[in-house]
Order: sequence, then structure tokens, then C-alpha cells
Amino acid sequence: MSKVLVFGHKNPDTDTITSAIVYAYLKQQLGADAEAVRLGEVNSETQFALNKFGFEAPRLIDNVANEAKEVILVDHNERQQSANGIEEVKVTEVIDHHRIANFETSDPLYFRAEPVGCTATILNKLFKENNVEIPANIAGLMFSAIVSDTLLFKSPTCTEQDIQAGKELAEKAGINAEEYGLAMLKAGADLSDKALEDLLSLDAKEFTFGNVKSVVAQVNAVDVNDVLNRKEELVSLLNNKVEQNGLNLYFFIVTDILNNDSVVVVAGSASEDAAKAFGKELNDHVIELPGVVSRKKQVVPVLTDALK
Amino acid sequence: MSKVLVFGHKNPDTDTITSAIVYAYLKQQLGADAEAVRLGEVNSETQFALNKFGFEAPRLIDNVANEAKEVILVDHNERQQSANGIEEVKVTEVIDHHRIANFETSDPLYFRAEPVGCTATILNKLFKENNVEIPANIAGLMFSAIVSDTLLFKSPTCTEQDIQAGKELAEKAGINAEEYGLAMLKAGADLSDKALEDLLSLDAKEFTFGNVKSVVAQVNAVDVNDVLNRKEELVSLLNNKVEQNGLNLYFFIVTDILNNDSVVVVAGSASEDAAKAFGKELNDHVIELPGVVSRKKQVVPVLTDALK
Repeated sequence: MSKVLVFGHKNPDTDTITSAIVYAYLKQQLGADAEAVRLGEVNSETQFALNKFGFEAPRLIDNVANEAKEVILVDHNERQQSANGIEEVKVTEVIDHHRIANFETSDPLYFRAEPVGCTATILNKLFKENNVEIPANIAGLMFSAIVSDTLLFKSPTCTEQDIQAGKELAEKAGINAEEYGLAMLKAGADLSDKALEDLLSLDAKEFTFGNVKSVVAQVNAVDVNDVLNRKEELVSLLNNKVEQNGLNLYFFIVTDILNNDSVVVVAGSASEDAAKAFGKELNDHVIELPGVVSRKKQVVPVLTDALK
Repeated sequence: MSKVLVFGHKNPDTDTITSAIVYAYLKQQLGADAEAVRLGEVNSETQFALNKFGFEAPRLIDNVANEAKEVILVDHNERQQSANGIEEVKVTEVIDHHRIANFETSDPLYFRAEPVGCTATILNKLFKENNVEIPANIAGLMFSAIVSDTLLFKSPTCTEQDIQAGKELAEKAGINAEEYGLAMLKAGADLSDKALEDLLSLDAKEFTFGNVKSVVAQVNAVDVNDVLNRKEELVSLLNNKVEQNGLNLYFFIVTDILNNDSVVVVAGSASEDAAKAFGKELNDHVIELPGVVSRKKQVVPVLTDALK
């Protein structure tokens, strides 16, 4: 039996890193030679969760084609968000909770996507369906993923299923859900001492909306002014990214995790159109989006519909 | 709550028709306003199964956009195999066992594909996961789908899971599996009195392999000579289809269900390349494929790899 690699998307977040570890664990219990790997740096929120539950970060890989013949994708399916070399390997499974696009196989596979807030919520079902017990430290990782993706159950992406899974997993992990959850979010959301360049690569995903080649990036902030105070430098950085990568839009979302609002800093020729998509005015590269916290549910569908 | 339509692919086969009926039934039990519909004529094998278990064929629809805002796809996902107007409605769920291609959504959805022989095998799990009992007549339809897609458990697409589901369902349906299964297959495989034009539209699916625009059609036969005796007329029909639809390949598989072999009649500029893909000589429009019975597992992947 050959090794299968399990990984999430580029610019990994907590759900992507932990789901790779967790699903590799489940596959191992079912007899597979599975290894979790990652496609980028671990952010400080994820590192907080790994430390808390006693895990090392998965091994960093560059090109997947050099590593294995078969892979399992978690927390993503779109080719441009996946590993370099993905076209040269066989995708045997996908476990995801995003829209489906830019994904094609020549053979049938196991593809399990559900419209829930977090990959970990689906993994929680898969443990049950396969009659495998979830150890406390694995449950802790899964709980961390749900907190991260749902902003402690406050995001509109959060479903009843996520809340239920969160309860079960916090109990299995033996932690105080509210207290641990907020501490973890804060560990990732203090932006005051972070370089802007680092913030941009933290959680940036590529999309093509109609003909608009875009990057939609997002960071969580305890204080959005940690970013807005450096707007001039930020806009210049975004303009560079747009030029270097032939983009039409760079959409950088700064989400206030305490008030559940977002401020977006944009660059590129489609900036005005992007503001209009939300019925907003573009104000010196800034779009204010009160009540918006979810890229997946409140941003990507709006841009998809408006720019197609 | 608005109505959701449930349907399988164009040129419907037994799995597609019965899975639409069965999954609409399950969704109704879970409180949805779901209606099964179909995109084409019911073939004689499927009609045999519907008669046996006391079902009417689902309602025939033309353009789905005139009918509903939300749809559920069973037994397919590729756009060109789906309903006319599919781009204008929202796909809320997919239950399938084929490769994934030409499928894209703007929102997350429930997408459940598994590499098993039949959609009904996945539906059998979904009843269990949702704690809904399967009535005898519904079990009969599901068993019929498994027999059809696995050629009574003999196709290489047949998995342990299909065999297990087949056993459970035959028991629930209160039928003799072997006896009923063979009678149903034979009802669809007597081609002696069928017009060639009708055979072509029975189970034809469009594919694009690289730049090769193709139709891969398949019929089951008790006696392949019922088709081969009319080869001249058939080739002329295929050539017409190629010309009318701008195809590069028409790949018409006649499968001997008693001996589990196939003979293929081909037309189009890519005919030679298609024969080569299987390491075969093209012999006056005919390719012999001993041991080949599965379009999905033994034909589409070979053409995908060779013509890409």
C-alpha cells in the first residue's frame, strides 16, 4: 500500500492544518498509510492550538508530485488553492465545506462536501460513521478548528451542526469552550506587531470571478486600527501584488472579531466594481462592511454574482 | 419552503430514474418538498423495475429553469449530462458515484460522491444516517439500480459495499435476488426488435477528452449480433450524429451481459486514436473489447488519459 498525503489549502488556517492531522489520524486507524502535511507557514492562532493539545506542525512540502502518487484534500477543492503539482497526482478523497470549482478527476472518488461551518464538523461525523473513538487531544484540535472558522459560533457560516459538534468535542477535550476559544482567537488576532507583508500571506485565496482574476485575503483583528493606521503602506503593497501577479482585484478583509464587522482595503482595476457589488462607495481604497465576517458566505458569493 | 426537484442524467438509466424517486422519498420524509423528475424516456429495463414495485415513471421535464429554483442532482454531476437550464438554478445537493468534472457552484452545498458501483448504495447509507426506514417497494427500486449498474454484481465497478447493500435491499424487498435481477437485465437487453436510432439515445453521455468532443453510448445485449447484423446502417447513423453535432468521436458500446464482453462501433476523426487508446486495431469501425463492461471504469479513464 503506497503512502497517501493529507493536506489543506495554501496559506493554511487552523481548520486546514488541524483537519489534515485529524483526518490522517482517522485514515491510519482505518489501516491507511496516511501522513498529514502542510503547504505553508503555521499562523499564530494555529500554533496556539497545536501547543495546547501537544502536536507538532505537519511537515511542510513544496511540490506534491515529488512526494506521493495519491493525495487526500481537506478544507479545499479548487486547484489554484491546492498544492503545486496537484495535476500530476491522483486525488482519492476530498473532505470540504466550500463551494466546488476548478476541480476535475478522471476517476470516481470519495468526495464529501457539506454546507457546514467547518471541516472538523464533517470529520466528527466520519469518526462516528467509521466507529472510531476520538481521543481527547484530537477532539481539542477539532474544537479549535470550529472556533476558528465560526469565530466562536458567531459567524453566519455557523450551523446547528457546528454548534452541536463543538459541544461534543469541547467535552471530549475537557476544556472550557468559551475561555479556550477566545484565548485562541486572540492569539491570532493581535496584529500590532505583525509586518503587513506577513498579514497578506496569512490567509489569501485566489479566485476568478468572471474575467476578474482576484485574491481575497482575510485577517482577524482585535483592533482593526492596527492595520488601518498603516493604510498607505498597505495600499502600496497591494498595488505591487496586483501588478506582479496580473490581478484585477486584491480584496483584503480585516475582520474585527470582538464586534463582528469588517473593513476591506482594495486594489486593482476592479476595485470600484467590487465596492458596487456590496452597494457601497469606495472611499480611498476602503470599503466598510458592517456585519460581514465570512469570506465564504458573505463575500465570495457576492463577488461571484456581481462580476460574472 | 420552495419545491426542490430531484433528477438524474439525460438518457436516463435504471439507477438515475430510481435514485431520483428514492432520494425524493427520503427528502420528503425529512420534511422537504421534493419531487422526482426525469430528463428523458424510460428504457425497458427501468420500466420492468417500476412495474414490478408499483411505481409510475417520474414526470418528464424539458427545461429545469421553468420548473424550480433549487435542484438536487443524483447519479451525475457534469453540466452537459444534466438538465437544460441547469446554469440558472441552484444545485443544493449532489449524490453521485461518477468522476467529478464540469461542475461549479458559487456556494457551499452537500456533495456526496463515493467510488461505489451505484448511487443506490450511497442512498442506502443516507437512509441509515438519517434514521429513516426503507419501505419494501423503495428497497426493490434500489436493488434494481444496483443490479443494473453492476450487471448483477459482475462489473469491475461493483464493490463490497454494493454487494452488501444489494443483500440488505433484496431482503427488505422480499425478492429472489438472482432470479429477479436476471429477468430485469434481460428485459432491457433484447435488442432484436429495437430501432438503431432508439438504441443510440438509450444511454448516451457527452464527454470532452482533451479537444476530442465525444459521445460514449452503451447498450446491454443478450445477443450482440442483434446490433452487429445492422452495422452498415449503424455506421451511417453514427456518421450523421458526428456531423450534426460537430463531434470528433462517437463510441457506441454493445455489452454482452451473459459473457461480460463488449464490442464497440465507432465513428468520427478520433476513431483510430480511440482504438489505439485500448491497444487495439480498428477493424472496419469495430473495436473488440473482451472483458470490458464498464463505461465508467474501463472506458472513460482510458479515453481521458489517451486523448488528453
